[in-house]
Amino acid sequence: MHLAIDESRRAQGISSPNPPVGAVIIAQDGTVLGRGFTQPPGGPHAEVMALASAGAGARGAIAVVTLEPCDHTGRTGPCTAALRDAGVVAVYYAIDDPNPRAAGGAGTLRDAGLRVVGGVEAAAVAAGPLRPWLFRQRTGRPMVTAKIASGVDGRVAAPDGTSQWITGEPARRRAHRQRARLDAIVVGTGTVWRDDPALTARDEDGGLLPHQPARVVMGFRDLPAGARIADDAAPTRHFRTHEPADVLAGLEDALWVLVEGGPSVIGAFLAAGLVDEIEVYLAPLVLGAGAASVEVPGVESLADANRFSLVSVETLGDDVLIRLAADVG
Amino acid sequence: MHLAIDESRRAQGISSPNPPVGAVIIAQDGTVLGRGFTQPPGGPHAEVMALASAGAGARGAIAVVTLEPCDHTGRTGPCTAALRDAGVVAVYYAIDDPNPRAAGGAGTLRDAGLRVVGGVEAAAVAAGPLRPWLFRQRTGRPMVTAKIASGVDGRVAAPDGTSQWITGEPARRRAHRQRARLDAIVVGTGTVWRDDPALTARDEDGGLLPHQPARVVMGFRDLPAGARIADDAAPTRHFRTHEPADVLAGLEDALWVLVEGGPSVIGAFLAAGLVDEIEVYLAPLVLGAGAASVEVPGVESLADANRFSLVSVETLGDDVLIRLAADVG
Ligand SMILES: NC(=O)c1ccc[n+]([C@@H]2O[C@H](COP(=O)([O-])OP(=O)(O)OC[C@H]3O[C@@H](n4cnc5c(N)ncnc54)[C@H](OP(=O)(O)O)[C@@H]3O)[C@@H](O)[C@H]2O)c1
Ligand SMILES: NC(=O)c1ccc[n+]([C@@H]2O[C@H](COP(=O)([O-])OP(=O)(O)OC[C@H]3O[C@@H](n4cnc5c(N)ncnc54)[C@H](OP(=O)(O)O)[C@@H]3O)[C@@H](O)[C@H]2O)c1
Repeated sequence: MHLAIDESRRAQGISSPNPPVGAVIIAQDGTVLGRGFTQPPGGPHAEVMALASAGAGARGAIAVVTLEPCDHTGRTGPCTAALRDAGVVAVYYAIDDPNPRAAGGAGTLRDAGLRVVGGVEAAAVAAGPLRPWLFRQRTGRPMVTAKIASGVDGRVAAPDGTSQWITGEPARRRAHRQRARLDAIVVGTGTVWRDDPALTARDEDGGLLPHQPARVVMGFRDLPAGARIADDAAPTRHFRTHEPADVLAGLEDALWVLVEGGPSVIGAFLAAGLVDEIEVYLAPLVLGAGAASVEVPGVESLADANRFSLVSVETLGDDVLIRLAADVG
Repeated sequence: MHLAIDESRRAQGISSPNPPVGAVIIAQDGTVLGRGFTQPPGGPHAEVMALASAGAGARGAIAVVTLEPCDHTGRTGPCTAALRDAGVVAVYYAIDDPNPRAAGGAGTLRDAGLRVVGGVEAAAVAAGPLRPWLFRQRTGRPMVTAKIASGVDGRVAAPDGTSQWITGEPARRRAHRQRARLDAIVVGTGTVWRDDPALTARDEDGGLLPHQPARVVMGFRDLPAGARIADDAAPTRHFRTHEPADVLAGLEDALWVLVEGGPSVIGAFLAAGLVDEIEVYLAPLVLGAGAASVEVPGVESLADANRFSLVSVETLGDDVLIRLAADVG
């Protein structure tokens, strides 16, 4: 199942709005015969990709899939039929499909005489690449991660506006790899006017990674002429609103959205209760002046603070990454 | 040597301005016969305490000490004489005494026929309780730690001034244990007027710990009548200055000083280049408004940031403690 989770990671961002699923075909002796992950909408699902890579070897083999195989004919045929026709004899999967249109695959496979086991490593899969999709199935909106990069005093920019680079190379590299798995990155017009960020997902040499998230700007002002965010390296959308909920509603296909700043936009998402996790990158420096990372309107007292749970702490080079999660979601 | 380091920890705060030293007397077979740590000024040194607890058993035994035994007669007699007279046959110590008045102990002991080995676990000892004293010997001023307790957005208080409690119980408990090892805690008049803190070192039941650091206030204003900081639970000093260097100069006997806030006072120490390490306690919350943890005057650009090295990251309950050190010192 951990190989299947690894496969599913490669589908993140590109499969949306479909779930990023991973599948592995293994022989009875455990040999890996094929692997696959969900292709962009309209393309084959993970099971079909894995079967294709296994070829004739799939006959008599076992399929391991992160999500219950689908049972309905959409733009692609049902995976249940593909598994049966390929001669697979057993299917192990992690999560029952919560979508009634696609569910029922386990029953269909059992009826076709396959051995079917659900719930395999369900917790690991639910915490992995499938998490934003499961979140959207449950809540009807994308999962929202807010990202902060600041000094230990919480400042994200000096008084003269300089903010690049507060964090070091390993933190930036992780941020770019994460971008390649997102559906959208949200910033305010203020950040575009101030920093003119490209918001593309790039590799270490500056080359564009295969998948680019949509670059989303919120705020009433027009974008500056020639803004890098509006170039053709990735899609760009501009929502002339201050309402985080309007932005999320406009991102119909998005599973995972990163709110990257600035302070007012992160604050607006927090005030609206629309932040599911926070990633705080802290550089080992004190700026001592300049913008704080978050501005939440209307906060008066410590009782108004937005409280989260600590998920993890790690070091990335000389920086620290703290991950927090909303207690409900 | 690690037992000796543990002993020396008990001397921290109480031995100042003398070094907090730990000593252990062990038999040739490794049995621990006695332990001791430096007593308050005028009282016995660690070696004498350890010899007393070993009694007659010290004859033929080995002494393990964190610092080279002293060779001079001050308010107490030289430890070299005490070790020799007790019949100790070998002395293992970590750090050569950098103080010319007290140094030379190793040579004296060798001349008396003892086996003497210096440099034992020197790095561990130099990073332990002896560190502030070694720092003072080198620089002529106490070691300064700045302490911040904030949300992940760097805010230390809400707009209405509420700031208690941002961090949780385990972080507060650690802070109180640390206070009991300090010589002084520095705050600004603003913090005294706003929060009326007691700044005492207390145990979990609120009882005073045996050693209390001096409570030091800096700023021109008078303290409010009845301020808790001026009660008789611990010494209090008020420096009517804005110059961190003046405060440190006034703390002649201090080895280790904690600057606890507020933002302007921490900022003043940073601007003066007088912060040797920073401890940042981060609670898993976002305040989104209110005072930032540090205000450094004159910062314009990211190039003006105070950069440190990351020393360690740990979790304390739901909080994160990040320790940073100045690159030079
Ligand atoms: N280190 C980091 O992680 C990071 C990331 C991003 C930005 N930054 C820094 O943040 C600074 C920019 O600060 P900023 O506050 O101007 O950035 P911002 O939050 O990106 O933009 C603020 C603007 O967004 C619009 N907006 C949209 N929704 C809003 C809402 N609900 N509430 C308020 N305004 C809303 C408003 O402009 P309209 O008038 O157009 O409506 C507002 O002026 C820059 O210095 C940048 O370097 C740092
Ligand atoms: N969470 C934490 O870690 C923590 C710790 C402490 C305080 N706080 C919060 O910080 C807030 C207090 O902020 P604050 O800035 O008023 O506190 P502060 O830094 O304690 O006090 C500022 C005052 O100190 C005096 N001062 C002394 N040296 C100074 C210098 N070099 N530069 C400027 N002023 C100097 C000035 O008063 P004079 O006019 O008397 O000279 C100044 O008004 C409170 O809300 C408190 O809750 C939080």
